Amino acid sequence: MSDKKKAVILSSGGLDSTTVMAMAKSEGYEIYSLTFDYGQRHRVEIKAAKKVAQIFGARQQLVIHSDLTSIGGSALTDDIDVPKGRPLEAMEAAIPKTYVPARNTVFLAYAIAWAEVLEIAEIFIGVNAVDYSGYPDCRPEYIEAFEKMANLATKTGVEGRTKIKIQTPLINMSKAEIIQRGIDLGVDFGLTHSCYDPLPNGTPCGQCDSCLLRKKGFHEAGFPDPIFL
Amino acid sequence: MSDKKKAVILSSGGLDSTTVMAMAKSEGYEIYSLTFDYGQRHRVEIKAAKKVAQIFGARQQLVIHSDLTSIGGSALTDDIDVPKGRPLEAMEAAIPKTYVPARNTVFLAYAIAWAEVLEIAEIFIGVNAVDYSGYPDCRPEYIEAFEKMANLATKTGVEGRTKIKIQTPLINMSKAEIIQRGIDLGVDFGLTHSCYDPLPNGTPCGQCDSCLLRKKGFHEAGFPDPIFL
Repeated sequence: MSDKKKAVILSSGGLDSTTVMAMAKSEGYEIYSLTFDYGQRHRVEIKAAKKVAQIFGARQQLVIHSDLTSIGGSALTDDIDVPKGRPLEAMEAAIPKTYVPARNTVFLAYAIAWAEVLEIAEIFIGVNAVDYSGYPDCRPEYIEAFEKMANLATKTGVEGRTKIKIQTPLINMSKAEIIQRGIDLGVDFGLTHSCYDPLPNGTPCGQCDSCLLRKKGFHEAGFPDPIFL
Repeated sequence: MSDKKKAVILSSGGLDSTTVMAMAKSEGYEIYSLTFDYGQRHRVEIKAAKKVAQIFGARQQLVIHSDLTSIGGSALTDDIDVPKGRPLEAMEAAIPKTYVPARNTVFLAYAIAWAEVLEIAEIFIGVNAVDYSGYPDCRPEYIEAFEKMANLATKTGVEGRTKIKIQTPLINMSKAEIIQRGIDLGVDFGLTHSCYDPLPNGTPCGQCDSCLLRKKGFHEAGFPDPIFL
């Protein structure tokens, strides 16, 4: 094993996870990028994730096919309309239809599996409990419980190797702060994709929760969003 | 929703999960059977799981394609030899090559996703901490931590519905006790498949840890194993 710090980074090709990757890179981590093809409407994000991994010089990039469509229950994986044009208060009031049941748990489960094979102890995920869509699996208490479970689930917990650490550098940042941080680190947000329901050519709809939170973030950060330039 | 108790049951078509299904059935649960096609050597078990689900009148049966081969790191999913002819002490001494990194976490993650969509609170898994192969994700402390995490990961934890419960009826039973219980409940163990490394025609190798634990169990229970009749 080299002495270089290594991290598995969950990457959706979106604004948050790309900023996380930039942060890890700037802290000297060697990057192992993990992306999921789970039958999401917005599969264009997988292409974005591939570009992002290349740009940050990821040592490995793995795209896992994870069958969440057969489970359904979400506007992102099922035949349910993606809500559009909702005010922020509505987003915060209840868990929205775009919530994919247990998605972060499925993603993090694969991440600890891959990390164990690679002998990597740190996993980065761009969850955010401020400007988010009210998903239960973005909260700090969830991440803490997952980390505890992960250390019992794997060889690490039994054989006493370095403990698995789930790193969530964005958890207390607003969307505007995330964008500011990304810009400071030279992230080209023009490569990233956030929309839940893009047009067939990949153009963002501009009206789903994810587009609206992104717009608000760029507005508050005082920068133009390059994907709308 | 009907008043009938419902359960998602993780089923591999093996001896343990089939006994779990029989136990749940005898307690009046309506069965939702969940099986994984994860690229295992012993895919013949998926066929066994389908038969078992039919026999127990499962209300639904879902086979999820879960891409664990791209992660590798196990004799069950990678190009690593399955250990053969090991004495029990060797099985207990260390985590074996057949351990699939984070497998139960990946499986249970999908289970909580499906359970959430079906509005089912109980998930049954046939883990066993007595006659087992030393896998970290079969221990009671792991299951307890997973359950805690699951209740934070999903709508259940936020919206205060019935708590998710991970049921592990076999956890403190010996293999012989499991077999005895199955026989008492009328399980046809001839339908079940346990071998990690079957011949191309599906015949068990008789020498992998799983075959050896099964043989020992039938011997101690004082019954002939119908798959060897």
